[in-house]
Amino acid sequence: MIRRTVFFVSDQTGVTAETLGRSLLTQFEAHEFDQVTVPFIDSVDKADQVVRRINAVAAEQGARPLVFSTLVQDELRERFLPVQGLFLDFFEAFLSPLERELQMRSSHTIGRTHGMKDAGAYDRRIEATNFALGNDDGARTADYVAADVILIGVSRTGKTPTCLYLALAYGVFAANYPLSEDQLEHGTLPKTLEPYRRKLYGLTISPERLQKIRRERRPTGRYSSAEQVRFELRGAEALFRRYQVPFVDTTSFSIEEIASTILSGTGIERRVRP
Amino acid sequence: MIRRTVFFVSDQTGVTAETLGRSLLTQFEAHEFDQVTVPFIDSVDKADQVVRRINAVAAEQGARPLVFSTLVQDELRERFLPVQGLFLDFFEAFLSPLERELQMRSSHTIGRTHGMKDAGAYDRRIEATNFALGNDDGARTADYVAADVILIGVSRTGKTPTCLYLALAYGVFAANYPLSEDQLEHGTLPKTLEPYRRKLYGLTISPERLQKIRRERRPTGRYSSAEQVRFELRGAEALFRRYQVPFVDTTSFSIEEIASTILSGTGIERRVRP
Repeated sequence: MIRRTVFFVSDQTGVTAETLGRSLLTQFEAHEFDQVTVPFIDSVDKADQVVRRINAVAAEQGARPLVFSTLVQDELRERFLPVQGLFLDFFEAFLSPLERELQMRSSHTIGRTHGMKDAGAYDRRIEATNFALGNDDGARTADYVAADVILIGVSRTGKTPTCLYLALAYGVFAANYPLSEDQLEHGTLPKTLEPYRRKLYGLTISPERLQKIRRERRPTGRYSSAEQVRFELRGAEALFRRYQVPFVDTTSFSIEEIASTILSGTGIERRVRP
Repeated sequence: MIRRTVFFVSDQTGVTAETLGRSLLTQFEAHEFDQVTVPFIDSVDKADQVVRRINAVAAEQGARPLVFSTLVQDELRERFLPVQGLFLDFFEAFLSPLERELQMRSSHTIGRTHGMKDAGAYDRRIEATNFALGNDDGARTADYVAADVILIGVSRTGKTPTCLYLALAYGVFAANYPLSEDQLEHGTLPKTLEPYRRKLYGLTISPERLQKIRRERRPTGRYSSAEQVRFELRGAEALFRRYQVPFVDTTSFSIEEIASTILSGTGIERRVRP
């Protein structure tokens, strides 16, 4: 099968073009793709450089590259007419139907999807990130009154990265609290969490996967033993059920999926959007 | 102007539909949109529920909602034919041209853009996140040999969130090191950083913005005084130039833009893609 090169061309960071392109490429798993991101193409000169680069790859590989574009300005898009590749134009495809529906012209200016159009959004994300860092792993509980959600679970179920993702992507204030052996033993919720029961959300995972993850940290010893892992997970899930704490099994979930499941399960408001 | 409701419908997390939809909506800034994300629509029943919900909103508001869909399965998309809204189908629009170009049928299965298709990617992101946490704010320097990039700059220029974003989004190992008053005074690079000069990347920001950010933390005192902020930033930028450390001004940049600028400026390989 011919190997294809994929270019993500953007007048901004390229995040939107990558997101669009990759979600489409997952539908062609049999195919091999080399991926190149070309961000900040905001001038005719830069656009022409990219076209030359794509055409060079086309000639060299004997296969037309795929080009996913989120260029907004017509004068930049037009430079790609002579490109030796399949040019998929995100805005072209969807702006016209939207203009008709909303009965207004789009601004056709360089998008600021990930930009500082809303400086407040930046500040909220930073605040939320600082909150996640300050309230990680049960470090502090005094601020739980300000938390949107408090993740609980045993060690290595994904609490920390999920809190950080919730903060960076959505500006959500997420704390996390590890369940101790003692609490698992007695199946009782820590006193500090009692007042915040309605903010709790549990994370669990399959024993096999947890053991694999823990072994990478500590190859031997009780921490990563099959018995210990099973005991902790059984205890955590029993505790979730006893206190009616909603929980999600993260075994086959990505960080985005865990975060999205928590948000849609709790109805927590996103303070910013990715 | 009529207020419109926007639905992001997905068989997964909705992150892709949100990202694509929002980048289009930025082109209609004059318009007000209420945004609703409906993730994990993976059955005909769930699809029909969403259609009923959208139609109810249309009737109630007297305006057709906008529906951004990343549904992949034809049988789910078909349920939206009777929807009382503008249905924008990201897959429909681009899958056919891709199928023609690649001369193969797409799998038309539920995409796993943000899924565990690659469990290794999950592990790399977690490792990178742990690296960022362990190497934040100069906490540890022994691991710098493993760093892809080491961000340097004065307090509150965005080092920590940028490192965490680089880790979560791209699996990049990013450490950060705050420049001390002493180093700024003498304009010399800390000894610990000397061996890693080629991994350094600087962050700077405008004095006005930095003062505003610092004031939110400490309203009074030297830390957030105009003189101190100017002194620190002048010293940092002089140091960047003296040691030829590439740097970016984060004043009007989002976290995505800072991260993307660093990656495209250094050519650091993304270990995973968002």
